[in-house]
Amino acid sequence: MEKVPILIVAIAISLCAFAFAAWLYAWVNKQPSSNKKIAKIGGYIRKGANTFLRKEYLVLAKFAGVAAILILVFLPKFIWEGNVLENVIMASAYIFGTVFSAIAGKVGIQIATIANVKTAEAAQRGIRPSFLCGFRGGAVMGMAVVGASLLGVTLIFWLIGESHALLGFSFGASSLALFAKAGGGIFTKTADISADLVGKVELGIPEDDPRNPAVIADNVGDNVGDVAGMGADLFDSHVASMAAALVMAINLDSKLGSNINVITVFIYAALGLLASIIGVSMARMGKSDQPTNALNASTYITTGVYVVLTALVTWIFKLQWQIWLAAIIGLFVGVIIGIASDYFTDDRRKPVHEVGKASESGPAFTILSGVSYGFLSTLPAMIGIALSALLAYVVTKPLGGTVLSTEYGMFGISMAAVGMLSIVGMIISNDAYGPIVDNARGLAEMGNLGDEVIEITDTLDSAGNTVKAVTKGFAIGAAGLTVIALLGAFISEVNIAIDTLGLSIEPFTGFDIMDPIVFFGLLVGASVPAVFSALLMLGVDRNAQRMVAEIHRQFKEIPGLLEGREDAVPDYDTCIAIATQGALKELIPAGLFAIVITLVVGFVGGIKAIGGFLTGNIVSGLLLALFMSNAGGLWDNSKKYVESGHHGGKGSNAHKAAVVGDTVGDPFKDTAGPSINTQITVVSLIASLLSTIFLTFSIF
Amino acid sequence: MEKVPILIVAIAISLCAFAFAAWLYAWVNKQPSSNKKIAKIGGYIRKGANTFLRKEYLVLAKFAGVAAILILVFLPKFIWEGNVLENVIMASAYIFGTVFSAIAGKVGIQIATIANVKTAEAAQRGIRPSFLCGFRGGAVMGMAVVGASLLGVTLIFWLIGESHALLGFSFGASSLALFAKAGGGIFTKTADISADLVGKVELGIPEDDPRNPAVIADNVGDNVGDVAGMGADLFDSHVASMAAALVMAINLDSKLGSNINVITVFIYAALGLLASIIGVSMARMGKSDQPTNALNASTYITTGVYVVLTALVTWIFKLQWQIWLAAIIGLFVGVIIGIASDYFTDDRRKPVHEVGKASESGPAFTILSGVSYGFLSTLPAMIGIALSALLAYVVTKPLGGTVLSTEYGMFGISMAAVGMLSIVGMIISNDAYGPIVDNARGLAEMGNLGDEVIEITDTLDSAGNTVKAVTKGFAIGAAGLTVIALLGAFISEVNIAIDTLGLSIEPFTGFDIMDPIVFFGLLVGASVPAVFSALLMLGVDRNAQRMVAEIHRQFKEIPGLLEGREDAVPDYDTCIAIATQGALKELIPAGLFAIVITLVVGFVGGIKAIGGFLTGNIVSGLLLALFMSNAGGLWDNSKKYVESGHHGGKGSNAHKAAVVGDTVGDPFKDTAGPSINTQITVVSLIASLLSTIFLTFSIF
Repeated sequence: MEKVPILIVAIAISLCAFAFAAWLYAWVNKQPSSNKKIAKIGGYIRKGANTFLRKEYLVLAKFAGVAAILILVFLPKFIWEGNVLENVIMASAYIFGTVFSAIAGKVGIQIATIANVKTAEAAQRGIRPSFLCGFRGGAVMGMAVVGASLLGVTLIFWLIGESHALLGFSFGASSLALFAKAGGGIFTKTADISADLVGKVELGIPEDDPRNPAVIADNVGDNVGDVAGMGADLFDSHVASMAAALVMAINLDSKLGSNINVITVFIYAALGLLASIIGVSMARMGKSDQPTNALNASTYITTGVYVVLTALVTWIFKLQWQIWLAAIIGLFVGVIIGIASDYFTDDRRKPVHEVGKASESGPAFTILSGVSYGFLSTLPAMIGIALSALLAYVVTKPLGGTVLSTEYGMFGISMAAVGMLSIVGMIISNDAYGPIVDNARGLAEMGNLGDEVIEITDTLDSAGNTVKAVTKGFAIGAAGLTVIALLGAFISEVNIAIDTLGLSIEPFTGFDIMDPIVFFGLLVGASVPAVFSALLMLGVDRNAQRMVAEIHRQFKEIPGLLEGREDAVPDYDTCIAIATQGALKELIPAGLFAIVITLVVGFVGGIKAIGGFLTGNIVSGLLLALFMSNAGGLWDNSKKYVESGHHGGKGSNAHKAAVVGDTVGDPFKDTAGPSINTQITVVSLIASLLSTIFLTFSIF
Repeated sequence: MEKVPILIVAIAISLCAFAFAAWLYAWVNKQPSSNKKIAKIGGYIRKGANTFLRKEYLVLAKFAGVAAILILVFLPKFIWEGNVLENVIMASAYIFGTVFSAIAGKVGIQIATIANVKTAEAAQRGIRPSFLCGFRGGAVMGMAVVGASLLGVTLIFWLIGESHALLGFSFGASSLALFAKAGGGIFTKTADISADLVGKVELGIPEDDPRNPAVIADNVGDNVGDVAGMGADLFDSHVASMAAALVMAINLDSKLGSNINVITVFIYAALGLLASIIGVSMARMGKSDQPTNALNASTYITTGVYVVLTALVTWIFKLQWQIWLAAIIGLFVGVIIGIASDYFTDDRRKPVHEVGKASESGPAFTILSGVSYGFLSTLPAMIGIALSALLAYVVTKPLGGTVLSTEYGMFGISMAAVGMLSIVGMIISNDAYGPIVDNARGLAEMGNLGDEVIEITDTLDSAGNTVKAVTKGFAIGAAGLTVIALLGAFISEVNIAIDTLGLSIEPFTGFDIMDPIVFFGLLVGASVPAVFSALLMLGVDRNAQRMVAEIHRQFKEIPGLLEGREDAVPDYDTCIAIATQGALKELIPAGLFAIVITLVVGFVGGIKAIGGFLTGNIVSGLLLALFMSNAGGLWDNSKKYVESGHHGGKGSNAHKAAVVGDTVGDPFKDTAGPSINTQITVVSLIASLLSTIFLTFSIF
């Protein structure tokens, strides 16, 4: 089969996604809004989010500039030893990746800060229009992100067609995501924790009360952390999964003298986007008025459409059924991991109830039981990821006959990742829905829209939280499979480098655990996600302490603020500025640490140490990411469970303890946990990109 | 060189250790004691500890009986297929291991519950006699444990001389340790947390106040958890390190037609015990009156003596200097890991200060900063373990020439573990000193010995806590190296099984990370320590809730108890019974989970999956054990730091927050963290023992 028509179809589908996003954008934008107070507060939020994004992008542009220059000079080969053009292409692909990622984030912020206002006002007309507004706002982001990923990868492949450039593009996406996720995560949790701590706990004023100086920063945070950061993260995962699959497909196809595998990657990825478009366009709240059901239904529809479409195309174009099966295995395991996460964070299940009950004995028990259930929650997901990789490998291995069985097996794993991430357009739509309705809730409160409206937005918000736990489990699972595939891509790159350099060493087929250099890498790699999370959380901790001091200052120095006097206006901007500066300052050490330690291990222990290092990083990264995301979601929902009247309800000692759990869980689930995904991907990509250099210069 | 004289020397040194222990026991026992109230309370504690131990051993005897029967029927070969005698020997070695471990625990409890009384009364005569009493009490345990380990391993080797029996003995020791550590850990933290929560936090009565119904249980807990449990744990590590080294030495020597390596193992282990005897006998408090310095000085003396003695013997008997170097590398890395742990838990260092400062903003920040520093603390130790394994391997590898280089390298790693554990007699003495002086502090309070005496015991207690953090880091490092060595022993066992079974597969040289079955094992194995810890902590959580309810009941129903009326006597026994029953009930699921999942993975994925499983288990087990131990120690000392007057001191909000941190840290550092060591060892030994069966029956 010819490649070109398929590439054209892929581009066409991504353009369809953009068109659909534009239509959704216009639809949201033309929804009525008339309340001036909401418009004003919405304006603050939009301005704050854009200011943060601009400042963050300025910092990241410097970082990306330095990285691009380094790539230009050193990669894929030293510029004075190799082909200058190759280095220029790679540096350009890298920049291209960062720019696409930045644009996706910007689009997300743009729509989210419109949709929040529209959703709040729509709630006055009932839950169904309000739901649709929030969901379609989120879907703009979903379509834009996946469209950009598919378009970018397809263009890079078509124009350049080799694996270095794909990895360079992917590295651009993920290095930006690393800092965007970390920076956004620190910003959002700084604001959230500080606002809650002073407002809800100390002063006893409601959430989203406009007297609270940090309330706008909190709403800005939802946008920069949960919308822009999350978008960058999933953009990165989607690109990385395609890049890893393509690196192996190119390698396989060159050995087979065919292009069936490359074609398959593009077809399955494009169909995933198509299925998401269909799923999004069918999302409506049914008569039952349960937003959670509506969100889940669209996910299941997308999954079903994807299975049918890929089966049809596989049948019609005579693609390989084993590859199809690998993709479907990935997809289903993603759903199962999501359901398992759901069990541990659902307020109708035992873990949430138990943590709520433990809160009666004080905050220490809230923490202990939450940590325990968080640890327990890792088991099903780890087994799920492990099993899907194993099954995908076993299923696709026979395709390679005797010579290429390992290569096909690894390609199968990468296709499981592609399958799992195929419906990511839908996942992002669900995910971005969360912060939009969360913001809408705040606007309804601040705009005095009345209890009924606040209740509607509350219901929408709670559905957002439930769905978020599921999508986070999904995102971690997808990242897990992707990085396993990237490990395969790394070996493939190393062997190409051995060939190119004409080295007289055997090509690598794997890494032996019993080799002490591999084991050395394994242990060091395992500690990286822990240290990385610690640096982020310490950043939130320090930043929140600064912010709390500022809030205290304002309540002390602005007369009448606490009493709610009309003329007492809090200084929202200073709080936003503190969150911004702190986030930009604190995101650097964590990101740099992950990058620098990879270089150190590579230069000390060479390829073998890096093989162990990546593995250790994946293993402990998945474990900690699952633990932190699930424990955080569990504490959040336990607090809500207590607030809904259990174990004494609001204001009881159990409630105070549950709030402590929620505060601890915030940076767990929204800063450190989800950033680990990106950290693993970045480290894996650096390893692949620098394979030639590590081969040439290392102590051991 | 002949084996027999060396074995006789090893036995002689272990008998010396017993004689020394007996002398120390007699010395402690003849110290004066006259206070009747202390004698009475001391009697309660002794009775409670012995009751728990008897009940625990009854439960464990049943478990060990079942395990012994299973071994008799199935191991090393099915009894109907192999040599009946071999199975009898292995089952006997297993029982022998459990009995030795149980006796060591019993001896520890015996002396600790005498020494606590003597130490409390000695404090009336000054800090120096009191210190000596506490330390010598601890040293009885140290000498008994290491003497028993060396004697047991030497006898098994001399009488049977093959690796199965050694592994069986080691499995006996560690399966008992698994439950003893878990049961003791649950008991001690149940009592500690409940006593603090109701006594200190709710009612504001001092620690160790005799009005508190849980106060005796708390003191019993120190003995059953920190003395008996810790002794079983380090007995297990010491036996396992020797067993792993001997398995590889036997294998090497049979190929070399020599016995130099076996001899080296015994010589180095015996010299370690000798060095500990010398170190212990020289321990005195200097004129500076700093107990921490006295404890550290004895450790450094032991280390120095060991280095000199082993160097001398290596020179005189022309042993291999590379092996000596490996052992010394292990020892020094152990000390470095100890120092690194110390940094993160020392109240003169930044982490403790920062957590104390964060407590001003409330308990959530105490937890967040403690978790963060706990994560950071894993890096130096992980790098230390990784580097020591790598260096030991690199140093010893050349000894094997071209044919045996891998075997020698792995043997080098196991010798690094032997080196690290060589001074364990000293380490246990320091470690057991902690609970003895902690108990003495309680007795001084309950016996109304006056503020000056309480202050002396407080100083001794605080030194115990500082030293404990160091020894715990040391114990985890040692366990890390030991299990890496056990991985080598596992491969060696598998290859022997392949030979014996006459299978037509290649012998294993390692495990390839890129093999998806290995990777499957890796991911599943990594989640085991998390789940295991979670089960233990949930056990503490549930049990403490029961106990808190009982304490509330007593304060409500016993008239005059809170006011301290003479006739109001709390019902200590019920609290002890609750802690006992709960601990025995809750220790089973965690221990069984670890064992059962190993069997499942082995029967599903076979040897390769088990190779990955053990590795994942080691990697995440070390990470979590370091995190939990260090974070726990950090919170404990931060609380003490705040109590000493910083950030508002006792009764301030910062103090309340710091207490929450301490309560969370308690099961982290004394239940889950240190139990992970044993869990990893048990799983590794099961894998080795069942290698034949996994080779024969597995799905993949």
